[in-house]
Amino acid sequence: MSKIAVVPGSFDPITMGHLDIIKRASTIFDEVKVVVMNNSSKNPLFTVEERRALISEVTGDIPNVEVDSFSGLLIDYAVNVKANAIIRGLRAVSDFEYEMQITSMNRFLNENIETLFMVSNNHYSFLSSSIVKEVAKYKGNITGLVPVEVENALKLKFQ
Amino acid sequence: MSKIAVVPGSFDPITMGHLDIIKRASTIFDEVKVVVMNNSSKNPLFTVEERRALISEVTGDIPNVEVDSFSGLLIDYAVNVKANAIIRGLRAVSDFEYEMQITSMNRFLNENIETLFMVSNNHYSFLSSSIVKEVAKYKGNITGLVPVEVENALKLKFQ
Amino acid sequence: MSKIAVVPGSFDPITMGHLDIIKRASTIFDEVKVVVMNNSSKNPLFTVEERRALISEVTGDIPNVEVDSFSGLLIDYAVNVKANAIIRGLRAVSDFEYEMQITSMNRFLNENIETLFMVSNNHYSFLSSSIVKEVAKYKGNITGLVPVEVENALKLKFQ
Amino acid sequence: MSKIAVVPGSFDPITMGHLDIIKRASTIFDEVKVVVMNNSSKNPLFTVEERRALISEVTGDIPNVEVDSFSGLLIDYAVNVKANAIIRGLRAVSDFEYEMQITSMNRFLNENIETLFMVSNNHYSFLSSSIVKEVAKYKGNITGLVPVEVENALKLKFQ
Amino acid sequence: MSKIAVVPGSFDPITMGHLDIIKRASTIFDEVKVVVMNNSSKNPLFTVEERRALISEVTGDIPNVEVDSFSGLLIDYAVNVKANAIIRGLRAVSDFEYEMQITSMNRFLNENIETLFMVSNNHYSFLSSSIVKEVAKYKGNITGLVPVEVENALKLKFQ
Amino acid sequence: MSKIAVVPGSFDPITMGHLDIIKRASTIFDEVKVVVMNNSSKNPLFTVEERRALISEVTGDIPNVEVDSFSGLLIDYAVNVKANAIIRGLRAVSDFEYEMQITSMNRFLNENIETLFMVSNNHYSFLSSSIVKEVAKYKGNITGLVPVEVENALKLKFQ
Repeated sequence: MSKIAVVPGSFDPITMGHLDIIKRASTIFDEVKVVVMNNSSKNPLFTVEERRALISEVTGDIPNVEVDSFSGLLIDYAVNVKANAIIRGLRAVSDFEYEMQITSMNRFLNENIETLFMVSNNHYSFLSSSIVKEVAKYKGNITGLVPVEVENALKLKFQ
Repeated sequence: MSKIAVVPGSFDPITMGHLDIIKRASTIFDEVKVVVMNNSSKNPLFTVEERRALISEVTGDIPNVEVDSFSGLLIDYAVNVKANAIIRGLRAVSDFEYEMQITSMNRFLNENIETLFMVSNNHYSFLSSSIVKEVAKYKGNITGLVPVEVENALKLKFQ
Repeated sequence: MSKIAVVPGSFDPITMGHLDIIKRASTIFDEVKVVVMNNSSKNPLFTVEERRALISEVTGDIPNVEVDSFSGLLIDYAVNVKANAIIRGLRAVSDFEYEMQITSMNRFLNENIETLFMVSNNHYSFLSSSIVKEVAKYKGNITGLVPVEVENALKLKFQ
Repeated sequence: MSKIAVVPGSFDPITMGHLDIIKRASTIFDEVKVVVMNNSSKNPLFTVEERRALISEVTGDIPNVEVDSFSGLLIDYAVNVKANAIIRGLRAVSDFEYEMQITSMNRFLNENIETLFMVSNNHYSFLSSSIVKEVAKYKGNITGLVPVEVENALKLKFQ
Repeated sequence: MSKIAVVPGSFDPITMGHLDIIKRASTIFDEVKVVVMNNSSKNPLFTVEERRALISEVTGDIPNVEVDSFSGLLIDYAVNVKANAIIRGLRAVSDFEYEMQITSMNRFLNENIETLFMVSNNHYSFLSSSIVKEVAKYKGNITGLVPVEVENALKLKFQ
Repeated sequence: MSKIAVVPGSFDPITMGHLDIIKRASTIFDEVKVVVMNNSSKNPLFTVEERRALISEVTGDIPNVEVDSFSGLLIDYAVNVKANAIIRGLRAVSDFEYEMQITSMNRFLNENIETLFMVSNNHYSFLSSSIVKEVAKYKGNITGLVPVEVENALKLKFQ
């Protein structure tokens, strides 16, 4: 039976760290759904539509990846799309604790959907959307930290 | 001489994790004062009065527990009520560091009031008021994570 | 194509925490190979053969699980059995750091084999083979922490 | 009813950090039992008898402290002496994780005995019996890190 | 050749913990530049000018310390002043992770400027500008946690 | 006045991670003394002489680096060579805690010698002498993790 994984996130915007996790998930699962979680309480730089468009562009060459967005509980989304697993990247200890809390809650809500963690590539272990935005805002060099399409989109935003 | 403990918190709202700590404190101390700290900088879901009322309801069967609220430094409250100890629940490493900072400051302010930590029950190690509110907001199942009275109060808030 | 996962460990002896991870891995992967790593520098309580036999007994009802043992580098074993992924359970922050180190080394040695982490069930978050052996040695109650077969084997060892 | 606390440890030898925790426990509890756990697998510098004698000397002026020793599971000792609580000092994050594991196991074995943690005084947050022994071995200055009696005992051992 | 270090921070306001790090840096480096980073997204209690003035007052007796302020990327400032190193104080594990992320990004931006960490003095390990402001706001005692000049400035702010 | 730094370690054997720290220290300090600490309680693979020889070979092209060895307390060595600072590399949170303990003890023993930490390069954040020896023992590929001279020495040891 076909195995489906969900890779959730804010992706504001997608970085090389996210892309690395998505690519690696696509080698294990038959289908990977990258879902932009639309958490209304944050103040994003890119709209949900812009974030989806950037992810679609940079994952266009991976045939088993689909891009989506959702408002609500991640576990409800995962049930809707018949996912077997949720995939999360881990960079640091502080990530880990927060992720353990979310994972435990998700298992409480639905035991049938597994959460799997992948350790970020060392090259990207310091990388986050926030730090990229901070550097881009002050015209620092972000080449190699985000796909070219995202680099251009950030330059436009901070013109 | 009678031993008095203070269990401080935001309790917005009280969870089964908080209740577990309160019950366990009540077996060690002669008197337990649960105090809603009224930190004006946060944006609470429940008013101080609602939070006190919910705590009173769910601790009604523990004879040596009293409910209170306070604005100001916790250590001043503890001195006012002649407390011997402040009780805090610990779930995770990040909790621990923040708590160590607060505890060290409280010892600097007053060496005579001891802070004691209890490790949260494993069942509640992922539980926080924030995550319960997030799940309740999207109509997720929170049965067993908070007392029934709190579950009902949350449903009313998010109608 | 069939997806194969390796669940490595000392399993000296297998606990309910290990068994939980193995069962969950078996729902995601087509084939799960539980491999007793024979690290000569430790001083085990059970021989490799005893450990394999106990794992076989307690995983007998999961059709896609096989038990094996290996001396050498885990990544060499994973290549030999054509594994797509290595599965590890995470309990705590200290686990996490050690696992990140091993995972980074394994990716250095072979980028094609992914390591995936699962968070241990809260009920077993304090569980380890060492602590079970320590309690069993002093005739403490370990019912529910290990399968019945392991409980009996421990009683025999510490007679 | 009288409240009894157990302060367990290796105490090889007792440091100012241990003494600080014992003194603070003695202000909260009616009776404090300091118990030298006789874990045969370690290779101690002082015998159990020497360790007990040193603790007795340096806690002689605290009327509600008694010194004891035990081989076996701490929880069995705590039950034997009708303790209400086990007291542990916490210095660092790594302490915390290990202690959480032990505490969870002890709660599994007996829910009626509470474990309470105290944060070590900042002055002693880097202090351990091991580091004191290492410094003493090379004739480094340990004045103020251990009671005078212990300082003398260490000098004799490393003559 | 003369070695230059940068000690960056919000310094809202400078504490004894900051001052300890600045003094220690001044014994290793020929020139120390204390720079108030003007991060517009925070809501500071003191203006950049007030913060600079307080730092100047309390470091007046250290001849090789200069006070400055900057808006933008720290690494750009460090390049402008021809710094050899950036100095940061570390108190706790959570500090450490955040600092590792910033340091890795700064090395990505410019490999020639080294970041060096100093462990805060134990006496100040719980100290932060935020906790000092919280205590001062409620008229708690902060003597010894900040220089006298800062204590007076805080009293004026919270009158 | 000339600034002297000590880079202490077991260096059993020196890795690219160690070498990176030594090189970076040599750009900040006038003189760098790499000192093999001869801690008799460990069971090293290389003798102190072999370890010194390997370090000398691979640091031969850095003019201000000297290699040494010492038995005893590091702080005594640092005083002997008139060092201004001790330099340590940090990879992970667990490193950090251990290092904080050692650093606090060293400051207790001598306040005039500063300890400075450098964050390891991301490429080497998983690297340790132990893991390199483990991989080399089983003929795994260590090219790029240690200097060529060390790679050859390891091959000879594990022939």
